[in-house]
Amino acid sequence: MRTSDSALVLIDLQKESNFGLKNMEEVIKNTEKLLPAFRASNIPIIYTRQINRADTIGLSKGEPLNDDGTPYYYNANSDQIEIFDEIKPKEDEIVIDKYRWSAFYETSLDLTLRSLGVKHLYIGGVVTDGCMMTSIFDAYFRDYQVNLIHDMCTASNEGAHQSAILTMTNWVYNMKIYKSDQLINKLNGQSHHFFEADRADSMQFTKDTMEEQYNKIVNSL
Amino acid sequence: MRTSDSALVLIDLQKESNFGLKNMEEVIKNTEKLLPAFRASNIPIIYTRQINRADTIGLSKGEPLNDDGTPYYYNANSDQIEIFDEIKPKEDEIVIDKYRWSAFYETSLDLTLRSLGVKHLYIGGVVTDGCMMTSIFDAYFRDYQVNLIHDMCTASNEGAHQSAILTMTNWVYNMKIYKSDQLINKLNGQSHHFFEADRADSMQFTKDTMEEQYNKIVNSL
Amino acid sequence: MRTSDSALVLIDLQKESNFGLKNMEEVIKNTEKLLPAFRASNIPIIYTRQINRADTIGLSKGEPLNDDGTPYYYNANSDQIEIFDEIKPKEDEIVIDKYRWSAFYETSLDLTLRSLGVKHLYIGGVVTDGCMMTSIFDAYFRDYQVNLIHDMCTASNEGAHQSAILTMTNWVYNMKIYKSDQLINKLNGQSHHFFEADRADSMQFTKDTMEEQYNKIVNSL
Amino acid sequence: MRTSDSALVLIDLQKESNFGLKNMEEVIKNTEKLLPAFRASNIPIIYTRQINRADTIGLSKGEPLNDDGTPYYYNANSDQIEIFDEIKPKEDEIVIDKYRWSAFYETSLDLTLRSLGVKHLYIGGVVTDGCMMTSIFDAYFRDYQVNLIHDMCTASNEGAHQSAILTMTNWVYNMKIYKSDQLINKLNGQSHHFFEADRADSMQFTKDTMEEQYNKIVNSL
Repeated sequence: MRTSDSALVLIDLQKESNFGLKNMEEVIKNTEKLLPAFRASNIPIIYTRQINRADTIGLSKGEPLNDDGTPYYYNANSDQIEIFDEIKPKEDEIVIDKYRWSAFYETSLDLTLRSLGVKHLYIGGVVTDGCMMTSIFDAYFRDYQVNLIHDMCTASNEGAHQSAILTMTNWVYNMKIYKSDQLINKLNGQSHHFFEADRADSMQFTKDTMEEQYNKIVNSL
Repeated sequence: MRTSDSALVLIDLQKESNFGLKNMEEVIKNTEKLLPAFRASNIPIIYTRQINRADTIGLSKGEPLNDDGTPYYYNANSDQIEIFDEIKPKEDEIVIDKYRWSAFYETSLDLTLRSLGVKHLYIGGVVTDGCMMTSIFDAYFRDYQVNLIHDMCTASNEGAHQSAILTMTNWVYNMKIYKSDQLINKLNGQSHHFFEADRADSMQFTKDTMEEQYNKIVNSL
Repeated sequence: MRTSDSALVLIDLQKESNFGLKNMEEVIKNTEKLLPAFRASNIPIIYTRQINRADTIGLSKGEPLNDDGTPYYYNANSDQIEIFDEIKPKEDEIVIDKYRWSAFYETSLDLTLRSLGVKHLYIGGVVTDGCMMTSIFDAYFRDYQVNLIHDMCTASNEGAHQSAILTMTNWVYNMKIYKSDQLINKLNGQSHHFFEADRADSMQFTKDTMEEQYNKIVNSL
Repeated sequence: MRTSDSALVLIDLQKESNFGLKNMEEVIKNTEKLLPAFRASNIPIIYTRQINRADTIGLSKGEPLNDDGTPYYYNANSDQIEIFDEIKPKEDEIVIDKYRWSAFYETSLDLTLRSLGVKHLYIGGVVTDGCMMTSIFDAYFRDYQVNLIHDMCTASNEGAHQSAILTMTNWVYNMKIYKSDQLINKLNGQSHHFFEADRADSMQFTKDTMEEQYNKIVNSL
């Protein structure tokens, strides 16, 4: 049975997610460049997809609806739920559908990772302050060592992205943050660097320091 | 958003499950007769399917393998994982794939039922002493009132079937047991009957009384 | 068996939590004023406590340790894990210990709420961007209607508090935000008001608008 | 941080459980003999306790009640919920309270085991066909290798005990069954033996063969 101490998890990189997220093209482009390095390293790749049933059974409370009562976002009957063509999964890669923001909530993600013997999760996807952040907290609760890929996640707005990165840095005590090209170096056995907080709750901020604190992270990647 | 205080859950009625289970044809025939009554009552129908990935990622420990390393049972790449043709789901019905015996383990079953507002679960499927029993215990833990459909479940051997029915009767305190034709009567608003234990752990047994105790239940259906 | 469609959940209002959180005294004072209204309304009150075993079994990865290897925070053997005296639970109230940020992660919180028949959760506690936010997301995933009590939560820093409130407003689609005095009015059957977002992801922000967006919420409470 | 690839889990060996279970004294006596071997091996010991709140909040559906509305069994306010004196936990051992049959359902058991790095679970306790069996299935779903200690579990009736042992043997594919004295040998690094099924669903039975099949296991221990 296959084992691997690492896995790449890509959160909701679906056509539907192109709803005005900042830098989405760059996220796709960076993912496209990273995937071959993971594949060459024989590290399992897991894609998640946000799904809302057309008949709204199982729908999160308050989800926006169309006039005909179908879900406005991530309608299972639409091809918008598919992963972006540029980065679509190979036939043997794993696709896990989910109905709530966190990729761990009532899905087979955890059993898949446990079965593989995974300790280290590399995570990219969207949106930073929603599905990504809740998935990362849930990964942390389950003792996975989390590695956030910074240029493979984004949000609908700059403030949400920056503050979510700071919040995860503060409370996910074992998280490292990588840029995708540094992660490629790591996978290739080359020298590389990453950001890691030196203590709990280290990135406190105000409106006046949020960008400065955020840039401390980004500039060290 | 659709709601329903009841749901029918059919456990693993897949072509693969035809591995020598006793009375499987009768289970299928009874399910075929029951489905129209649930559909006419507009009660949601949920089918579960046991799935093992061909590459064995996520496989339960100790699962039998073929010589080529693929799973012997419920291989995702085989059409044996499909529901039996006679009772196959309609397009708008719900199919939930699972990787462990219990239909609740890391699946969207509970969120689906909660979203619908379900209180009463009607459960049939296979095998009585495995996926069925573990799913029923998990349903009970989540406060669903469980209704076991007796002539829509079976096992590979008589003893396992009988003892599992007795064990669930003893410890799932709010369980009722129906025969499918009585359940059809109930759905049609007609008089009907069912079995319900009168106290905790009421069906104690030995090898000499197992069948007798089991028949007390069956003869009252 | 007792039922209630509402419950008050107080997250980690423990002596230990007094580690430099802003306005902690006000949070305690407001909780002290609110509790009698919930008690008079016969609405169940659930306190959660963050606990780290002294021997570090079950400890979150990366938790700060003392020189002797014991956990720096929330040591189970310290009286610092107790709820603040001013607001301590009455004998018949519920105290749930937890080992991860989210109050739902491997605790009996959900079964307690389900058993009671709770639909509406009123939540206060600390820290806004940690245990509070992850608990609220987990409550939302389970279809509880979430009500955040704004002046009964706080964080170690202004930016984390403000951005967490905005993030929850953006992605917890059914959340209402109350001030404690308005909630008392509601419990007393008097006129009251609260904040509720008018659409998904409505509170987008940058460093320059974070406080302004946050104040839109606060000024309407 | 402490790690261990094994743990002993003792299910509900509480004074309350002495409600007419067969051979309870022998179970206690065998547990008393086994505990020093686990302690000498520095393997973590986890006791679970079934608990019902006196006010019935969180109570399983259908639980028997006293005339005054309090739970008939496992009342939290009774000293009957304590572990038997002969085998009571040492101060540094772990006690996990639970509200449903399975020791994994909404408890911190899994996070405790994961944190320790446990792969192998040794399980004893009561009742074989209830809390024990549902806990063992839940352990198996989470990929723990399960070791049932045969003379440290029992039930209210012979048939339930025998059939539950056969059912677990059939469907928990990686389970081994030990007698406590053989397990002591193993812990002492001495030769020992155990039972392990040679294939899936190997212990099929009828009323006429149940005892014979059961004895095949017992006689090989």
